Amino acid sequence: MAIQKLQWTGPHVVIIGGGFGGLEVAKRLARAKVRVTLVDRRNFHLFQPMLYQVATAALSPSDIASPIRQILTDVPNCRVGLAEVAGIDLAKRQVIFRRHALKYDYLVLAAGATHSYFGNDQWAEVAPGLKSIENAAEIRRRILLAFESAEYEADAESRQAALTFAVIGGGPTGVELAGAIKEIATGTLVADFHYIDTATTRVMLIQSNERLLPQFSPKSSERAKRDLETLGVEVVLNSRVTEITERGFRCGDQFIAARNVFWAAGVAGNPLARSLGVPLDRSGRVIVEPDLSVPGHPEVFVIGDLAAANSADSGAAVPGVAQAAMQGGRHVARLIREEVAAAPSVKPPRAAFVYRDKGSMATVGKARAVVEIGNWKIAGFPAWFLWGAIHIFFLVGFRNRSKVFGKWFWNWLINARDARLILGVSQVQILNASSEDLVDLEEPPRVSSPDDLPAA
Amino acid sequence: MAIQKLQWTGPHVVIIGGGFGGLEVAKRLARAKVRVTLVDRRNFHLFQPMLYQVATAALSPSDIASPIRQILTDVPNCRVGLAEVAGIDLAKRQVIFRRHALKYDYLVLAAGATHSYFGNDQWAEVAPGLKSIENAAEIRRRILLAFESAEYEADAESRQAALTFAVIGGGPTGVELAGAIKEIATGTLVADFHYIDTATTRVMLIQSNERLLPQFSPKSSERAKRDLETLGVEVVLNSRVTEITERGFRCGDQFIAARNVFWAAGVAGNPLARSLGVPLDRSGRVIVEPDLSVPGHPEVFVIGDLAAANSADSGAAVPGVAQAAMQGGRHVARLIREEVAAAPSVKPPRAAFVYRDKGSMATVGKARAVVEIGNWKIAGFPAWFLWGAIHIFFLVGFRNRSKVFGKWFWNWLINARDARLILGVSQVQILNASSEDLVDLEEPPRVSSPDDLPAA
Repeated sequence: MAIQKLQWTGPHVVIIGGGFGGLEVAKRLARAKVRVTLVDRRNFHLFQPMLYQVATAALSPSDIASPIRQILTDVPNCRVGLAEVAGIDLAKRQVIFRRHALKYDYLVLAAGATHSYFGNDQWAEVAPGLKSIENAAEIRRRILLAFESAEYEADAESRQAALTFAVIGGGPTGVELAGAIKEIATGTLVADFHYIDTATTRVMLIQSNERLLPQFSPKSSERAKRDLETLGVEVVLNSRVTEITERGFRCGDQFIAARNVFWAAGVAGNPLARSLGVPLDRSGRVIVEPDLSVPGHPEVFVIGDLAAANSADSGAAVPGVAQAAMQGGRHVARLIREEVAAAPSVKPPRAAFVYRDKGSMATVGKARAVVEIGNWKIAGFPAWFLWGAIHIFFLVGFRNRSKVFGKWFWNWLINARDARLILGVSQVQILNASSEDLVDLEEPPRVSSPDDLPAA
Repeated sequence: MAIQKLQWTGPHVVIIGGGFGGLEVAKRLARAKVRVTLVDRRNFHLFQPMLYQVATAALSPSDIASPIRQILTDVPNCRVGLAEVAGIDLAKRQVIFRRHALKYDYLVLAAGATHSYFGNDQWAEVAPGLKSIENAAEIRRRILLAFESAEYEADAESRQAALTFAVIGGGPTGVELAGAIKEIATGTLVADFHYIDTATTRVMLIQSNERLLPQFSPKSSERAKRDLETLGVEVVLNSRVTEITERGFRCGDQFIAARNVFWAAGVAGNPLARSLGVPLDRSGRVIVEPDLSVPGHPEVFVIGDLAAANSADSGAAVPGVAQAAMQGGRHVARLIREEVAAAPSVKPPRAAFVYRDKGSMATVGKARAVVEIGNWKIAGFPAWFLWGAIHIFFLVGFRNRSKVFGKWFWNWLINARDARLILGVSQVQILNASSEDLVDLEEPPRVSSPDDLPAA
């Protein structure tokens, strides 16, 4: 089959992962004499910093996802593959798929991170995390179902458990999620329920550290805590969760009945890293050279959340944020461009990666945030406004931004959460209020087979 | 538990189904002295007439779905239950759930319809229909995956099969779906693929009748056919499909290789109707009295797609459209109001249901439609504009309309399809182009267990 629209010449660069890092590499190689193949198992780039907005029904999945093909339409030397990578063969320089292998001259690993439950993988079922669109949809489903189930729960204790939410982990994701859940309960939903007062919903934020947002200054941490408490969130510091079940969680020597526990604590590098056979750090991330390459394999780079890197100037660890992934992508693309442009016999010296911290920010509920840019620290509404502006207008230069901004600003104004769909529910049974019309069945209804169960 | 915000007095009216019909009943009983319980197994009302827009990636699920609780917030005597109905016990006047039963004084069945594959239920796997949000998501996934798979398909015949779409059924849904698929292929996607020309996509519309849109006039049918053919859709009339497999479908004595077959042909009443033990018509719909009640059970009504009803004036069958469901809902609510308002000893005579045809409309691709209102027939852009205006501004008086209109109009202007997410894919393997970099693996890669398969 002829390659029709591609500019297809030069060394083959394979990029694994269509997140912030991988896309940046592809874009920055647009004018280089290389062939680029970007592989992801999904057809879309996910704007993860807004994922909690999907989990809390303020945005739809498609608002924060853009097709990778569309983002890379103008990169004439890049093809996009939808495939699941099974492993990497560093010796043969091949990416291994189910039935095929793809040869590379350069490989950029930008496959990101997943959750880590610190060895308690059984918690994943009861306490989902927030990394993928599916995670967000599941959290949204659980939040909305919690109120439905409380509405018809006759027993006061069970009702309270249904209306108790706990978010484990006090980083930006945990802070954002806890604030948003409390806001749903006290705002959007109050008028929709007849039997329960959704404003009585209990939202706890459990943090093992002595303060929230440890990557911020103590002053911002304190401000975030105060703002959350103003919203009505209970912030619990210096506490580790030792048990999570469907009924609740144990924290210290207390077991708290909570039907809704969400995980925002640990991350781990994509398991793909293990197939490399090179040293990983405790979180399963690849320990890279100063130029972001894999030790002993200068043709393989790791960027973004999957890399355990230190900035060459300060020696400080590079954080797992979108900015770092994009800067890493730019750095790697530059090294590849320089080597490809050099004469075949010349190996240009490689610059070490320097991470420039452009600032940190986290929202605290609606219309509040904490922002730190260098020594400049702001909080409250101005910080929230800046957070919105930066996230929406600068971070993703993709198609969705005007639409998302419109929807988001509108929701903020009218206090709406439009995306309140409960999907994927097959066996619901939420109509057991004590009521003069309700009859307890002594035996289950006579239905010939489960397939005969009709739908309402 | 005390009922807090409800006005809870009078006979108990149970409504099954939160579609156009069920919601209309609840709203029209807002000022009557009755207690209303509306039960649905989903927490949202689905605006089905726009469902094909979700299937073709122009709208997101939440754009055409509104939480039922929110729609009924202002109905002070209505509670909403999220539950799956297992059956109806007409003798005991109870709705049966998994573990409970709910007593009613009046029952309104508005549970709608599902697909009918005319006895070929095995076709459901290979040729999904378009009735639910999940159906729409599945069709969207298949459409988008078809192009991804064609992009890296080395074999020309397989590539053509991947790019061949067939829609079975030439009613409004089939016409709308076929037109929209052809438009995706020739518009939105052309720039995104390097190896295939998506404009060569073959879209067939198979109709058993001698014309499309049999419920319209022959003139409108002819116009719809011509407009579809202008778009590039192949319209096949007088043809029945006798076989559908993963590889294609048989139509007459021809087997056409097509990887994407969608079903828009038959509907059947919700299987719940069977639990009534009353006569059903061939499509599994309840044959109702002129007042829409179930024979022998004046306290039970059936409205919408689940009712086999005739209009009292013309004797014509009432069609399975949103208008008919809403009019049926209004009729039934009026009968209940009259009986509740009458003195206990008086049984007011019941009016027979008269269906007023407010017109029929179907879109044919972007910016074209056929509309018939009485003897007034229009087509082309004015009809499309009217279609949009009526659907968006009048049919659903719900929250989403301004948002949907904005998105829809915008997409129309810029030819975009924003919601191009492929979700729910677990095993993708689409990177098998013949390529200088690609190696066929003689044995599968050594991966210790399926769970160890890392994700890209």
